[in-house]
Amino acid sequence: MSIVLESTVEELLRRFARGDRRACGQVISLVEDEAAEAKPILNKLYPLMGRAYRVGVTGPPGAGKSTLVEKLARHLREYDYRVGIVAVDPSSPFSGGAVLGDRVRMAALFTDPGVYIRSMATRGSLGGLARRTREVCDILDAFGCDYILIETVGVGQMELDIAEAADSTVVVLVPESGDSIQALKAGLMEIGEIFCVNKCDREGADRMVLEIQTMLELRPKNDSWIPPVVKTAAISGLGIEELYERISAHRRYLETSSILEERRRRAVRTEIERRLSEKLQSWLWRRDGFKERVEELVEAVMTRRVSPYEAVDLLFKERGFDE
Amino acid sequence: MSIVLESTVEELLRRFARGDRRACGQVISLVEDEAAEAKPILNKLYPLMGRAYRVGVTGPPGAGKSTLVEKLARHLREYDYRVGIVAVDPSSPFSGGAVLGDRVRMAALFTDPGVYIRSMATRGSLGGLARRTREVCDILDAFGCDYILIETVGVGQMELDIAEAADSTVVVLVPESGDSIQALKAGLMEIGEIFCVNKCDREGADRMVLEIQTMLELRPKNDSWIPPVVKTAAISGLGIEELYERISAHRRYLETSSILEERRRRAVRTEIERRLSEKLQSWLWRRDGFKERVEELVEAVMTRRVSPYEAVDLLFKERGFDE
Repeated sequence: MSIVLESTVEELLRRFARGDRRACGQVISLVEDEAAEAKPILNKLYPLMGRAYRVGVTGPPGAGKSTLVEKLARHLREYDYRVGIVAVDPSSPFSGGAVLGDRVRMAALFTDPGVYIRSMATRGSLGGLARRTREVCDILDAFGCDYILIETVGVGQMELDIAEAADSTVVVLVPESGDSIQALKAGLMEIGEIFCVNKCDREGADRMVLEIQTMLELRPKNDSWIPPVVKTAAISGLGIEELYERISAHRRYLETSSILEERRRRAVRTEIERRLSEKLQSWLWRRDGFKERVEELVEAVMTRRVSPYEAVDLLFKERGFDE
Repeated sequence: MSIVLESTVEELLRRFARGDRRACGQVISLVEDEAAEAKPILNKLYPLMGRAYRVGVTGPPGAGKSTLVEKLARHLREYDYRVGIVAVDPSSPFSGGAVLGDRVRMAALFTDPGVYIRSMATRGSLGGLARRTREVCDILDAFGCDYILIETVGVGQMELDIAEAADSTVVVLVPESGDSIQALKAGLMEIGEIFCVNKCDREGADRMVLEIQTMLELRPKNDSWIPPVVKTAAISGLGIEELYERISAHRRYLETSSILEERRRRAVRTEIERRLSEKLQSWLWRRDGFKERVEELVEAVMTRRVSPYEAVDLLFKERGFDE
């Protein structure tokens, strides 16, 4: 990504403020690419953020999340809400287009200017995906979205991190033997605030609702919210309205109990801590001779003359940090 | 975990050095619990590490990993190798015993003093699991294991991190429609150095071998190793010997090409960087008035008077770190 001139950034932000979708896409790309312009742009947009309500939708592959998100978005559009959709695919970079296929189909469905869709695939590293997801949501928030729907495949730790970016987390399961056990294994039972048994026309839907409710009773209670279990058939649109009502009820619960504010405060604190740590590290590594000294110590550890723990203690003392 | 007196630590390490399995378990527990004794213990054991060869075994739930690991361990025992098994279950803490059931069964099988088995479940936080897995392997290494088999459920990012602890990574799949696509999605196709089509008496095993080989051809080549695909039926023991030969071939490849040394050097470097970053952070947070100042800035960010980026810049400058 080439350096964009300052005047160009301002022009970009002017177009962004006018609601230009291409400008929004460009801003997202700059932030995703960690371009030099990302920080000043996010700084400028910061006062505009914090208005959108963020809904995470997660679940195992094949649960019908994309269709559900699409139908939920259409439903939100009936109330004239502006909707952002962030589809996160933490799959391998060389899986390429195939896996993203259904999302591309979803994108093709929307020519509605009140809906903004962004697909995020990992490009090599998974590490920064959760952070980038949060930043993309922030930008869509500043862009004026009332609701942001974040779709992730619920199979591992990554999704738990991404779910942290959401205000309400919807876990989507299908009536299939073993699906609820897999959900349990993947940690989904802990993060769900609303559960959705999708494809509920299939056999075993009611049994699955019961299974989920039983598992939820075993869950340690942190607050007074009891996660509801909604039956949906996303393809026909069945249950979408109830799902929306449950999300709204959860939102009211979070807002009136001030949990929403507390969560956002915690997110700010985490964000500051993380950025501070990054900045501190990069500062240290820029010190004269530091890299070279670390390489010396790496060799000393390789030949087992010192342990990694001793090496770190040594580096710390040499740089004048008192214990 | 209460503080163990220094003399007790020395006594513990003496028992550990004599090959006392209970002492080994206690050392692992101290390190897992991040007890005060963990650092000095790891320091003392460091010169004994670096001998074991570490094999990661990963794959989707139900692929038969536990049985495969058990059979591989038995095979290694025929050569009189000492074997450590680390079974990592990144499942939710409240899934409890049920999910760990098959591992308990495996553990019951072994009364062989040449095999040491350790199950690791997450206790609340997933964050430190990969690191703790590495440390447990280090301890088993120091305990005298020739081979360490690390079993993880291959469903997400966590497993990729854990796989980093291994010298050779075996990906286990079963002939089931969609299984290879799921493996692709979970990033398993990228980390596998040896592929194993288990339950190969099932229909579709040969087709799956072909599928995997096709996908591997699409994989960007970093080195000259071409991952072999082995058919096994772990329950009957079929293919276990071939699997062992492939692992040995991979080991020879890594050793003669000095890739093994380079990887271990990289691991040491990462370890030093990580510990340094942790130490630096904890140092900073112990400074006078730092926490309070961060809380002030959190409030300023909440009311959108400053952005998190500006808050961090401010903290950095106030503490006298020049850019």
